[in-house]
Amino acid sequence: MELRFVDFLEFIGTFAFAISGIRLASAKHFDWFGAYVVGLATAVGGGTLRDLLLGVTPFWMLSPSYLIFTAIAFFFVVLFRKMLVRLDSAFFYFDTIGLGLFVVVGCSKTLQMEAHYAYWVAITMGMLTGAAGGVIRDILINEVPLIFRKEIYALACFFGGVAFCLCDAIGVESVVAQIVSAVTVVIIRVLAVKYHLCLPVLKRE
Amino acid sequence: MELRFVDFLEFIGTFAFAISGIRLASAKHFDWFGAYVVGLATAVGGGTLRDLLLGVTPFWMLSPSYLIFTAIAFFFVVLFRKMLVRLDSAFFYFDTIGLGLFVVVGCSKTLQMEAHYAYWVAITMGMLTGAAGGVIRDILINEVPLIFRKEIYALACFFGGVAFCLCDAIGVESVVAQIVSAVTVVIIRVLAVKYHLCLPVLKRE
Amino acid sequence: MELRFVDFLEFIGTFAFAISGIRLASAKHFDWFGAYVVGLATAVGGGTLRDLLLGVTPFWMLSPSYLIFTAIAFFFVVLFRKMLVRLDSAFFYFDTIGLGLFVVVGCSKTLQMEAHYAYWVAITMGMLTGAAGGVIRDILINEVPLIFRKEIYALACFFGGVAFCLCDAIGVESVVAQIVSAVTVVIIRVLAVKYHLCLPVLKRE
Repeated sequence: MELRFVDFLEFIGTFAFAISGIRLASAKHFDWFGAYVVGLATAVGGGTLRDLLLGVTPFWMLSPSYLIFTAIAFFFVVLFRKMLVRLDSAFFYFDTIGLGLFVVVGCSKTLQMEAHYAYWVAITMGMLTGAAGGVIRDILINEVPLIFRKEIYALACFFGGVAFCLCDAIGVESVVAQIVSAVTVVIIRVLAVKYHLCLPVLKRE
Repeated sequence: MELRFVDFLEFIGTFAFAISGIRLASAKHFDWFGAYVVGLATAVGGGTLRDLLLGVTPFWMLSPSYLIFTAIAFFFVVLFRKMLVRLDSAFFYFDTIGLGLFVVVGCSKTLQMEAHYAYWVAITMGMLTGAAGGVIRDILINEVPLIFRKEIYALACFFGGVAFCLCDAIGVESVVAQIVSAVTVVIIRVLAVKYHLCLPVLKRE
Repeated sequence: MELRFVDFLEFIGTFAFAISGIRLASAKHFDWFGAYVVGLATAVGGGTLRDLLLGVTPFWMLSPSYLIFTAIAFFFVVLFRKMLVRLDSAFFYFDTIGLGLFVVVGCSKTLQMEAHYAYWVAITMGMLTGAAGGVIRDILINEVPLIFRKEIYALACFFGGVAFCLCDAIGVESVVAQIVSAVTVVIIRVLAVKYHLCLPVLKRE
């Protein structure tokens, strides 16, 4: 039963990330293939970079579900194009839940590696899993990565990673660490958007 | 003799891919070094990404021929600059032959891995081998990747990969599977360009 | 003692590369997080690409010093923003010393691999270690990579790599090879900037 709930969250996260890529691609007049690829890269790009850095087979090559989830997201955008704006608030929550889950997956996969990586590596991998997909998406559509200019997106990943590692360090059970970490990500991002919190812009010389 | 013919096709493909990168770099006022690098990245970028994902040593690090082929392409562009436009039709066929070969190499290398990847992974790797080099080229020259907006380039790779896997599944001899797959890529791309077939553009919201 | 001097050079190089990324990010109105990430990618991007191609764990995942060096560079830019232009000449020398060191690290790491790579692979990896970080930086800030259009930056890396391999081939002691190679990089780059040497631009069709 527990497995199924995590699978469901993974679908929600992949779906929301793919939607964000497909919508931005459509704003750039990409064709169907291009939109699908950008959606897929947004959804699996962060985890792929993490797996390459960790030296393991990229996760999406072991199960076709991520390509299928992205296809569902693609047809959703094609069919419900005119309703998408009204669903923005729902997408935001889906995206945030996905972000929390991706951070948890990135941290826990890193700490389970035989190489016994340090906590700061796990936090970095959690952040990459959550945030690098969006950077790859923005490179593919030839825009300055949004994450470098707006929203406390990456910082939410950072604190989620720290929460995970703190739980791990004090010996909390794995399931609890995962929930605490994901909830930390969700709360920080929701608060940041609600109260328009953002990091200072680096002043020009 | 058979090996030599494949080597010849590989030269043709690498040469044509490198030419496309070098010409686009020259349109952006790149210097000689920059043009060479963009040409090389176009020619070997797709196969390099495939090999990183498969966890094997990138193919071009095992033989200097790809750097040499790219150098030949570079001097060809420098010397015959004014004739290049008249050769566009020849380059198109070279490029298409290269595409067919790259798809075949990507699929067959994936299926030969010890990890026993599924057919859909082989098809994906065939597409990446054929199409990712052009995406990397467009990122390096800071343009929106052409492949996401024009021509049934990636779809030709897709059907070539499907043809390869179908042949493999019904137990056809390896050489036959390779020829069927490459010819599928070539025919679809030639027909697509001749009849201006393209995928629908994703409508904006 | 020798180790400590190399460590010091590594700090200088990482610091200078990170500064260049952070300054360009600030010119693009990146926030603090974005500027830090661009600085880090500039500093460790080349070595990371090299390590992925060589199939080893990326160097910065084995010690937190690179993240810390980048943090120091970040706070340096924040605190001494108004003085940075006056320090341009110092940064140039830091950057050039870093470049020499990065080329040496790239070549020697490649030749020490069990796979017994050829010299041309070592030279390529030396160039990637020195120059790819700047390309990744320019992709992240959505600019055409500077290295493809200006300065004999990559060519200095090339000759530094050739010098290293020549020394290795004639059996010179490792420390001597490293010094000869790094000095070659520094001299060529300093001369190129002083006398405004640059590669010809590829003429348009």
